[in-house]
Amino acid sequence: MRLALGVEYAGENFFGWQTQEKVRTVQHCVEQALSRVAAHSVSAQCAGRTDRGVHAFGQVIHADVHAIRKLHAWVLGTNTYLPDDVKILWAHPVDETFNARFTAIQRHYRYIILNRLSPPAVFAKKMAWEYRSIDVEKMHAAGQYLIGKHDFSAFRAAGCQAKHPIRTLSYLRVSRLNDQVHIDVSADGFLYHMVRNITGVLLEIGRGRRAVDWAKTVLESRDRNTAAMTAPAEGLYFCGADYPEQYHLPRWTR
Amino acid sequence: MRLALGVEYAGENFFGWQTQEKVRTVQHCVEQALSRVAAHSVSAQCAGRTDRGVHAFGQVIHADVHAIRKLHAWVLGTNTYLPDDVKILWAHPVDETFNARFTAIQRHYRYIILNRLSPPAVFAKKMAWEYRSIDVEKMHAAGQYLIGKHDFSAFRAAGCQAKHPIRTLSYLRVSRLNDQVHIDVSADGFLYHMVRNITGVLLEIGRGRRAVDWAKTVLESRDRNTAAMTAPAEGLYFCGADYPEQYHLPRWTR
Repeated sequence: MRLALGVEYAGENFFGWQTQEKVRTVQHCVEQALSRVAAHSVSAQCAGRTDRGVHAFGQVIHADVHAIRKLHAWVLGTNTYLPDDVKILWAHPVDETFNARFTAIQRHYRYIILNRLSPPAVFAKKMAWEYRSIDVEKMHAAGQYLIGKHDFSAFRAAGCQAKHPIRTLSYLRVSRLNDQVHIDVSADGFLYHMVRNITGVLLEIGRGRRAVDWAKTVLESRDRNTAAMTAPAEGLYFCGADYPEQYHLPRWTR
Repeated sequence: MRLALGVEYAGENFFGWQTQEKVRTVQHCVEQALSRVAAHSVSAQCAGRTDRGVHAFGQVIHADVHAIRKLHAWVLGTNTYLPDDVKILWAHPVDETFNARFTAIQRHYRYIILNRLSPPAVFAKKMAWEYRSIDVEKMHAAGQYLIGKHDFSAFRAAGCQAKHPIRTLSYLRVSRLNDQVHIDVSADGFLYHMVRNITGVLLEIGRGRRAVDWAKTVLESRDRNTAAMTAPAEGLYFCGADYPEQYHLPRWTR
């Protein structure tokens, strides 16, 4: 049986999603825990591989399991074998046409910036920090240039393994909640470091160092060297992925 | 010069506020950092001593410093010497009549419960967890019995050093924000474990194991043995303390 599962994790003590030799990864923890519940070796594939330090409220994975367990047991049982900083949120049976990575039609990220004089303490490593005042309205306006189907080469990091740089950005909203600034962004898919590079550009505009239409200039340049610094991993959350309705999976809601 | 300072910290890696031999405490970190900026030994007193694992968004402290520095430098300079999980938020000069503990006229706490099937992962150790559904309206109604000036002996833990058990609770609100339940509570002062013991009683009512007016029964018993389990430290936040207006200090706003 193929299972789709929702996974939440705090990224600061992981070297990202993907299993690597000798370092702690989310994939390794999740596969180990699922294997104990299934009583056989289980491998998991995710909707969006996250880098070291990046968090997830709604990672989606799929795994093939042969053991017969109640759905409930896949959640509660697996959680008992997982460390504090990664938990399964839900489990749902899917057919073999489902692939967490390739069946996803939309992915949703949030980038969180704490905008105040002092760095985060309660939320250390869970938010980026900017002590200068930033103009959220300008950042939001700049972000609207990126909506639509574009060549996002200017926002693509070296080492990106995507076949082509064309993505369709369907949503970008910059908003302030007290001293937090949230950048919510949705697309059919993202290039390597794309959200962090978009954030870097929007922050330069928010700080007043660049005009609002600089976002358009950067996009049209298709040149990574035109853009700004990559924003740090600690502010980034993978919030969810959408799948065709036939799979009946829970959806991320803003 | 006497300074009042606002302090934020994540409690999970501290053995509470108060300096003790051989363990990591907030007081020790803050005094060490202030001493480096002042270039002399500084001691700090706080508005509300927090236990191991308890967090603070708005602890208030006072400290006597002889060095002449800009207010800005007391915040930014001290923060450079503090670890990631404790930061100074503001600094304000006060006269010698000010004492962070004894001048405080109100103290504000928040208790956060994540109410869903799976434990917190992104916010592990920053929230308590309850997987059963809980009735927030009943909890709020029960909490209203506690408003006013009462003998809170039933909510007072062994080892409490307060001279008497009379406190005036001015505010108690239980509210739900998606899958989080917040208990906001304000009083002139709190007995040892009082917020966590109130939370324990409200949770029993929220789970439907006790009637709403059980909160009144427990209060009137003045007997700690009548009440429920002490809720865990990880859900508790010291949010702020209020002082007379003459000191012009920043106020916690809900």
